[in-house]
Amino acid sequence: MQPLDLMTATNIASTAIHIARETGIKPLAVAVLDAAGHPLAVLRDEGASFLRPQIATGKARGCLGMGFGGRELARRAQAMPAFFDAINSLTGGEVIPVAGGVLIRNAEGLILGAIGVSGDTSDNDERCALQAIAQAALVADNGDQLSR
Amino acid sequence: MQPLDLMTATNIASTAIHIARETGIKPLAVAVLDAAGHPLAVLRDEGASFLRPQIATGKARGCLGMGFGGRELARRAQAMPAFFDAINSLTGGEVIPVAGGVLIRNAEGLILGAIGVSGDTSDNDERCALQAIAQAALVADNGDQLSR
Amino acid sequence: MQPLDLMTATNIASTAIHIARETGIKPLAVAVLDAAGHPLAVLRDEGASFLRPQIATGKARGCLGMGFGGRELARRAQAMPAFFDAINSLTGGEVIPVAGGVLIRNAEGLILGAIGVSGDTSDNDERCALQAIAQAALVADNGDQLSR
Amino acid sequence: MQPLDLMTATNIASTAIHIARETGIKPLAVAVLDAAGHPLAVLRDEGASFLRPQIATGKARGCLGMGFGGRELARRAQAMPAFFDAINSLTGGEVIPVAGGVLIRNAEGLILGAIGVSGDTSDNDERCALQAIAQAALVADNGDQLSR
Repeated sequence: MQPLDLMTATNIASTAIHIARETGIKPLAVAVLDAAGHPLAVLRDEGASFLRPQIATGKARGCLGMGFGGRELARRAQAMPAFFDAINSLTGGEVIPVAGGVLIRNAEGLILGAIGVSGDTSDNDERCALQAIAQAALVADNGDQLSR
Repeated sequence: MQPLDLMTATNIASTAIHIARETGIKPLAVAVLDAAGHPLAVLRDEGASFLRPQIATGKARGCLGMGFGGRELARRAQAMPAFFDAINSLTGGEVIPVAGGVLIRNAEGLILGAIGVSGDTSDNDERCALQAIAQAALVADNGDQLSR
Repeated sequence: MQPLDLMTATNIASTAIHIARETGIKPLAVAVLDAAGHPLAVLRDEGASFLRPQIATGKARGCLGMGFGGRELARRAQAMPAFFDAINSLTGGEVIPVAGGVLIRNAEGLILGAIGVSGDTSDNDERCALQAIAQAALVADNGDQLSR
Repeated sequence: MQPLDLMTATNIASTAIHIARETGIKPLAVAVLDAAGHPLAVLRDEGASFLRPQIATGKARGCLGMGFGGRELARRAQAMPAFFDAINSLTGGEVIPVAGGVLIRNAEGLILGAIGVSGDTSDNDERCALQAIAQAALVADNGDQLSR
C-alpha cells in the first residue's frame, strides 16, 4: 500500500478550498489526515472562522477513528446519542458525526486517510471534499457510497 | 477595516450593564471580543452570579468561531445536537448556542468582534446587547437580522 | 465591609492600562477580581498579545486563592516548586506566582479583591497595578509591603 | 496592514519542509498562524512523528500569545520556570518556549503571524523557519534579532 504523501494531501486540501472560492460558497477549513489519524495538511482560508480547522480535523478524525464516512457517523449519532456523547467525552470531541468527513481510499479500497471540511453547510462542505478527492484520482467514501 | 478598540469595547460592555440596571432586569455579565475571538472587555455587575462571565464569553466566542449570531447557532444546535455536543467537547464549551451572542459589524458588514451577554433570560440578554451596539453606532447581527 | 463595586473595578483596570500607555511600556491586560476570585473587570489593550488576559487573571486569582500578594507567591514558588506544580495541575494554572498580582485591601486591611496585570516586565506590570490602586484610594498588598 | 494570506502561509510552510528535505535533516512539521494565533497552514512531512504538528503549533502560538520570538521565550522560561509551568497549565500547553518559534513581521515591523517548526534540533528547526520567511520576502523575529 502506498500511503498518502504530503504533496497529495496538500493538493487535496488546497483544491477543496479553491472549489469553495470558485463556487462562491463560504470560505473553508480543510484537514487531510493519514490513515493513522495524524494530520498531513490542515489549511484555513482567510475568511473562515477560527473554529473551522478544529471542526474539519474532528470530521476527518472521527471517520478514521470509527472506520466510517461522515454520513454513516451521522446516522449512528442520531440512533445512539448516548454512545456518541460518551465517545466525545472520552476523546475530547474528536468525533464530529456529520457530512463533510470523507474517507480517502485507493483503487483497491484500502483506507489511505480522510478529509474533513468545514465552513459552509455540511452538504456543500462534502461536495468540495468529494471533488478534491476525485481530482487526485482517489476514491471517496462518505459513508453512503464510493465515488471517484 | 478599523478594528474594535478598547474604548469602544468597554463602552459597549458598560452600556449593556447599565441598560440592565435601568430596566430592572437581573444583573449581567458582558464580554466584548475582537474579531479573532480574544477579549477586549469583560465586565460583571456586582450581583451577577460567578459563571456569567464565562457564559457571556462563550456566547460571543461561539458566534465568532462559527461565523453566525446566537439565534442561528441556537437553530443549528436544535437541528444538529450531536454536532454541537461534539464541538463543545472539542473546544471545552466555547460555543454556547443561544440568544445573547451577537456579532458586531461595521457599516460595510465586516465583522469587528462580538458581544456575549448573560444574566437574565436570553431574550433580555440579547436586548441589552443590541441596544449597546446601537448606541456605539455599529451594526448588530444576532443571526436573524441586522439592526443598528 | 463594602465590597469592590463594578465602577471601582473598571476604573482601576482602565487606569492601569492608561498608565502603561502614558509611560510608554508595552500594552497591558488587566484583571480585577472580587474577594471571592470572580472577575469584575477584565480589559485588554488593543496591542496586548492574546494570552495576557488569562495571565492577568491567573496572577490575581492566585493572590486571592492563596491569600498573598504576587511577590510572596513568587518566593514560595521558588522555595517549593513541587507544591506549585501540583497546585497548577490541580487548578488548571490558576496560580501564576509572579509580581503583577496585587491584593486590594481597604483602610482596615480587609481584602476587597485583587488585580493582575500582564504585558510588560513583571516589575512594570506591578507598578501600574500599584498606581491604579492608589488612585482609587485603596491599599495595595504586593506580598512585600502595603502601599496606598 | 495586509494580513498573511493563505497562499503565503502555505508557501512558507511548504518551503520550510523542503529545506529540511534538501539539507538532509529530519522530516518536519510546520505551523503558520495568523496574528491572532489561528492556523492558516499546518503541514507535516510524511516521516515526521505525530506529535510534531501540535508542537509546531505550540511554538508559534506561544510566540504570538506572549509577543516574543522563541529564543526570548526560552530565556524567560529558564529564568522563571514557575511562571511558565503555570502558563502551560493554564493554556493546555500552548506555550512551547524553545527556538523554532518565529514571529513573522512585515517591513514596517508589524506582526503578521508566526511560524513554528518541529522535527529536528531546535536550531535546525529554526534555520528552516528563518529561510522560509526570507524566501517569502518577510521579516523573521526569533527573539534575538530580525532577519530577512
